[in-house]
Amino acid sequence: MLSHQSLKSRHSRFLLATVFSLFVGSLHAQEAVLPIMPLPAHVTRGQGEFVIQTSFTIAITGHNEPRLERARQRFLDILTRETGIPFSREVSSQAVFIAKAEGPSVEVQKLGEDESYRLVITSADVQLTALSPLGILHGLQTFLQLVGVTPRGFSVPAVAIEDSPRFPWRGLLIDSGHRFVPVAAVKRNLDGMEAVKLNVLHWRFADDQGFHIESKKLPLLQQKASGGLYYTQEEVREVIAYARDRGIRVMPEFDMPCHTRSWFLAYPELASRGAADSAGFDPSKESTYKLLATFIGEMAALFPDAYFHTGGDECDPKEWESNPRIAQYMREHKFANGAALQAMFTGRVEKIVAANKKIMVGWDEVLQPNTPKDVVIQSWRGQASLADAAREGYRGVLSWGYYIDLNQSAAEHYQVDPMGDAAAKLTPEQQARILGGEATMWTDIVSHENMDNRIWPRTAAIAERFWSPQEVRDLDSMYARLSVVSQKLSYYGPRHKVVTEEFLERMSGDPDPMALRVLASVLQPPRLYQRQELRSDFTAINRMDDAVEPESETARQFDEICKRIVAGKALPADWQQARAWLTMWRDNDAKLQPELARSALTQDLAPVSKKLAQVAEIGLGALNALEHGEPIAATRRQESIALVQSAEKPVSVLLIMPAASVQRLLEATKEASVQN
Amino acid sequence: MLSHQSLKSRHSRFLLATVFSLFVGSLHAQEAVLPIMPLPAHVTRGQGEFVIQTSFTIAITGHNEPRLERARQRFLDILTRETGIPFSREVSSQAVFIAKAEGPSVEVQKLGEDESYRLVITSADVQLTALSPLGILHGLQTFLQLVGVTPRGFSVPAVAIEDSPRFPWRGLLIDSGHRFVPVAAVKRNLDGMEAVKLNVLHWRFADDQGFHIESKKLPLLQQKASGGLYYTQEEVREVIAYARDRGIRVMPEFDMPCHTRSWFLAYPELASRGAADSAGFDPSKESTYKLLATFIGEMAALFPDAYFHTGGDECDPKEWESNPRIAQYMREHKFANGAALQAMFTGRVEKIVAANKKIMVGWDEVLQPNTPKDVVIQSWRGQASLADAAREGYRGVLSWGYYIDLNQSAAEHYQVDPMGDAAAKLTPEQQARILGGEATMWTDIVSHENMDNRIWPRTAAIAERFWSPQEVRDLDSMYARLSVVSQKLSYYGPRHKVVTEEFLERMSGDPDPMALRVLASVLQPPRLYQRQELRSDFTAINRMDDAVEPESETARQFDEICKRIVAGKALPADWQQARAWLTMWRDNDAKLQPELARSALTQDLAPVSKKLAQVAEIGLGALNALEHGEPIAATRRQESIALVQSAEKPVSVLLIMPAASVQRLLEATKEASVQN
Repeated sequence: MLSHQSLKSRHSRFLLATVFSLFVGSLHAQEAVLPIMPLPAHVTRGQGEFVIQTSFTIAITGHNEPRLERARQRFLDILTRETGIPFSREVSSQAVFIAKAEGPSVEVQKLGEDESYRLVITSADVQLTALSPLGILHGLQTFLQLVGVTPRGFSVPAVAIEDSPRFPWRGLLIDSGHRFVPVAAVKRNLDGMEAVKLNVLHWRFADDQGFHIESKKLPLLQQKASGGLYYTQEEVREVIAYARDRGIRVMPEFDMPCHTRSWFLAYPELASRGAADSAGFDPSKESTYKLLATFIGEMAALFPDAYFHTGGDECDPKEWESNPRIAQYMREHKFANGAALQAMFTGRVEKIVAANKKIMVGWDEVLQPNTPKDVVIQSWRGQASLADAAREGYRGVLSWGYYIDLNQSAAEHYQVDPMGDAAAKLTPEQQARILGGEATMWTDIVSHENMDNRIWPRTAAIAERFWSPQEVRDLDSMYARLSVVSQKLSYYGPRHKVVTEEFLERMSGDPDPMALRVLASVLQPPRLYQRQELRSDFTAINRMDDAVEPESETARQFDEICKRIVAGKALPADWQQARAWLTMWRDNDAKLQPELARSALTQDLAPVSKKLAQVAEIGLGALNALEHGEPIAATRRQESIALVQSAEKPVSVLLIMPAASVQRLLEATKEASVQN
Repeated sequence: MLSHQSLKSRHSRFLLATVFSLFVGSLHAQEAVLPIMPLPAHVTRGQGEFVIQTSFTIAITGHNEPRLERARQRFLDILTRETGIPFSREVSSQAVFIAKAEGPSVEVQKLGEDESYRLVITSADVQLTALSPLGILHGLQTFLQLVGVTPRGFSVPAVAIEDSPRFPWRGLLIDSGHRFVPVAAVKRNLDGMEAVKLNVLHWRFADDQGFHIESKKLPLLQQKASGGLYYTQEEVREVIAYARDRGIRVMPEFDMPCHTRSWFLAYPELASRGAADSAGFDPSKESTYKLLATFIGEMAALFPDAYFHTGGDECDPKEWESNPRIAQYMREHKFANGAALQAMFTGRVEKIVAANKKIMVGWDEVLQPNTPKDVVIQSWRGQASLADAAREGYRGVLSWGYYIDLNQSAAEHYQVDPMGDAAAKLTPEQQARILGGEATMWTDIVSHENMDNRIWPRTAAIAERFWSPQEVRDLDSMYARLSVVSQKLSYYGPRHKVVTEEFLERMSGDPDPMALRVLASVLQPPRLYQRQELRSDFTAINRMDDAVEPESETARQFDEICKRIVAGKALPADWQQARAWLTMWRDNDAKLQPELARSALTQDLAPVSKKLAQVAEIGLGALNALEHGEPIAATRRQESIALVQSAEKPVSVLLIMPAASVQRLLEATKEASVQN
């Protein structure tokens, strides 16, 4: 049995899924909760199941349009991927799956446009109806997530679903400013967004580090500041069309007046300070607004969406106050401080945006006394800030709490609700101004290669928060369904399931880095902003903290087991699993150390591996003490706790996750009285 | 240690690589053999290594063209994939890697065009020179394969390489006739072909099962016979351009007069018999040649390559003789038999092809007394057939021995040489007519989903046979390098490394099918044509014989260990590994059986799993007997051998590979004399 226990460790991130898949099996035969994400608003279980035959066909009736026909083809592609059955692409008059949209959706997808659908699955056929193609797109995804394998073949449970979103704005921010993200990477994540019913791609193109989109009117921008990596306008149109096919709006962001150092490689004269050390525009120059008017005009025409994001975050007043000429300008025009100066800048930019028939969106900072009421506030600061905006009559989108680059757990994100905390105290009218939220994939220390495992599967949990009823909040159910959806997501496009393995192979130069894999399975990058503080190299994304997943499923499982052991609720299998893992972690170090020395990318992991072994050794001791109810000598116990606690701090920019769980075990042991 | 042993089993296909990667490490520090495939013609090792810095840049000097600039970008993309370092795409005047082509290659890549290159790598810089862009493309791939990770970072060993191919025709046939292969799948395999220097995509579009390319002049073909799955001519041009960018010619095949049932869904009147049961054209009708002239004319214009393949294989004389009218025609025109009738057909088709300024290529059968001498013979029958053709003055390409759909080992393919057997006895002039060979990826029981693990990595070994000097034939070196190249290939496009895992997850509905994985790791599909005979369903490609690799690396490793044990040359680690594997295989069945029952796609594996457990149990007994030099009771020994032999025959369309190895062990044991 030990062989299996340790085999498990290889794929322990899926352990829960393994356990749960039995449950899923039973779900397919009548349980209440469907193994899908986001959970639909209303579900009524029927009798039996719809078995997918080789002859399966789907037809679009009622309103039709090229987008729906492409959706039908894509649906069949994914269904083939899910089943291995090649389905005919031809339209049949006897289709068993009928999708019927009453009418078209508007030319350019609108915020708040109807996305509801009704999906009725019986053992005989499938009926999908919706007001517009948007509902059909969502219903097709729900069906695909419901497909499972049974003793009777691939099938979908008989069910009647009435579904519609809780919030109209459900977004993912992809930051192509800090780093260029290839079109293919953007597209495969749009595929993932479609699967979990997200409907806004917030696409950011420039930051201090680079300017990555083609401007035909100001070509110096991409010529001087892109490092040769930028999206042509043709590629941008292609992505917008790809997103529209999936019911997703594309809102561009061009952050200003700060985070704009890259602009100054092309236009140094517009920098507040020397181009090299300036991160902000000079708001005192007319030429600044002239250039921005040209640029915003061009981009407003390129992006059809009604909303246009101009950033506005994190300006340092020194940016302006330290420049005598600007300081002089501020005195002359009675700007009390940098914030006031930025307010003026924002006001002028807002007029440019409005003149281009777009609605401005900005981060918290753009909210100033005379900010026009139609401006949408995106909050990175928190729910209070968003609630204040709503009270003042502004619409808002919450991103605080959904920063998926900060390596928090799915549970932490899942428990943040746009209507929670301060927002909960708003009047219904004020609450109506909270449009939804956005997960944010910042790329300052993430590349297109590991982006997918930062976004998925955790963002599926966030998507459920935005789509499903507020009462849907059970964590065990969320984690159980998340692991099922994670596998489905890999059928749709995202590469999250292969990232860690690919990185480990590259780091080690070993096509089968077993021992390194064991170590990686219980490591996490430091959370929140600690990683930025500890990390030295921000250029190459090829280290262990880049490779591992933001949330170690092995460690999460181990901690659950330790909780049960401490609570006296552990099953024999729990003790067995805990001992098998601890033994493997302890023994792994001896094999791994010589391998670590062979690569420049793994050398600094030596102390991490050693510390894990020490923690595991202590954990085994604690397990034995607990199992036999034996006390541990006071000094040894204290030294052990001290070592384990030291292992809870980052080592080589990595968290050794089992340390905290082992501390649990230790603290549950008895201390031997002195005379022992 | 057992935990590691069993962990190994998960990725045992890479075990050799693990062992070898140490050797690779040492290779980077001065060994003779480079860990690349195909091995270059001439290699001189230098001192030290070229370390790839974050500032790495490459410049194209001398002749330049858009294709080379795209190759430079692609090279940087892959180098980033290999290192995780984002390299600037901009052209630098201080590039450390200089690639210089003397002049252009011809508009349409020609058979026999110069592909040689010279690559000189020192610790300071890299110089790549070639006569034409083709050599540059090959040299870039050689460099990428040489990149490895060391304690000093990513580097390439200092080396001087003079390289050129042994054969001018190095092909891969992709069969889009039996099944449609999506453009994305064709492209990622073109990426793999480029990496191992194959230069011909032999692309087949129609067979009895379907017609998968757009004809503008005869649109009924794709309308009636494609099932809605066909390549538009725009897509075909896109693939041809994609291939040219990679130094690969694209030769189309339209098989005739047989394997053409799909044509008759559109043109029943041209079938020899009723469209439903006819697999061949009626050669007695003028309208047949009229239609073919129209079609071949259209396709000859679409495909720029000088060669045009018209098939000609496997006609059944009954096809014609059983039709009274055609039989009458044969008598009137004195055609002794079907072969003679086909020869007439071939002659007329050849004239149509020649009239379109193309050179006809056909399978063995097209070689008839009066076949024009410029026709190229592709042999599926064998080397004798090819040698005969060469003697008669025909050029030929060998495919017999390279049928990668038949699940033979890399070693078996590697040992077949186009100049071997009958060809070895040819005069130099006759040998010069043997142009090379082609691996054939037939899709009668393979889909685009598992195609990659049928093609790779084995085709890299075949590519080495076509490119490298004939003396390069050491099997241990081949397998060692193959596992390294297999990982590199996954950086370039092919999905072979993830296919099995994806299939097992789909078959089981379990995101972590551990026990199923253990079983799969030692199974193989039946070899040669036995699989076709045993398999019932040819539609859905989602069973275990689709999922597993054609050559089980675990089983190959286990067999090597058993050979050493029997030869008395085993190390302690061998005994330990053998026991660990046998124990795991024996214990796996109990866990797996209940899981197998849960899916329609795994139910029939119950007897396979049970049999593996029995074989493993017997293996453990044999190991013990051998270790302690104890005899086994005669009857038990005979029964064991009988059971193991029964396990060597296919069960549920699967081969249990360790059975033969366990028989080795058993036969090495002593039989207890009667009185024991």
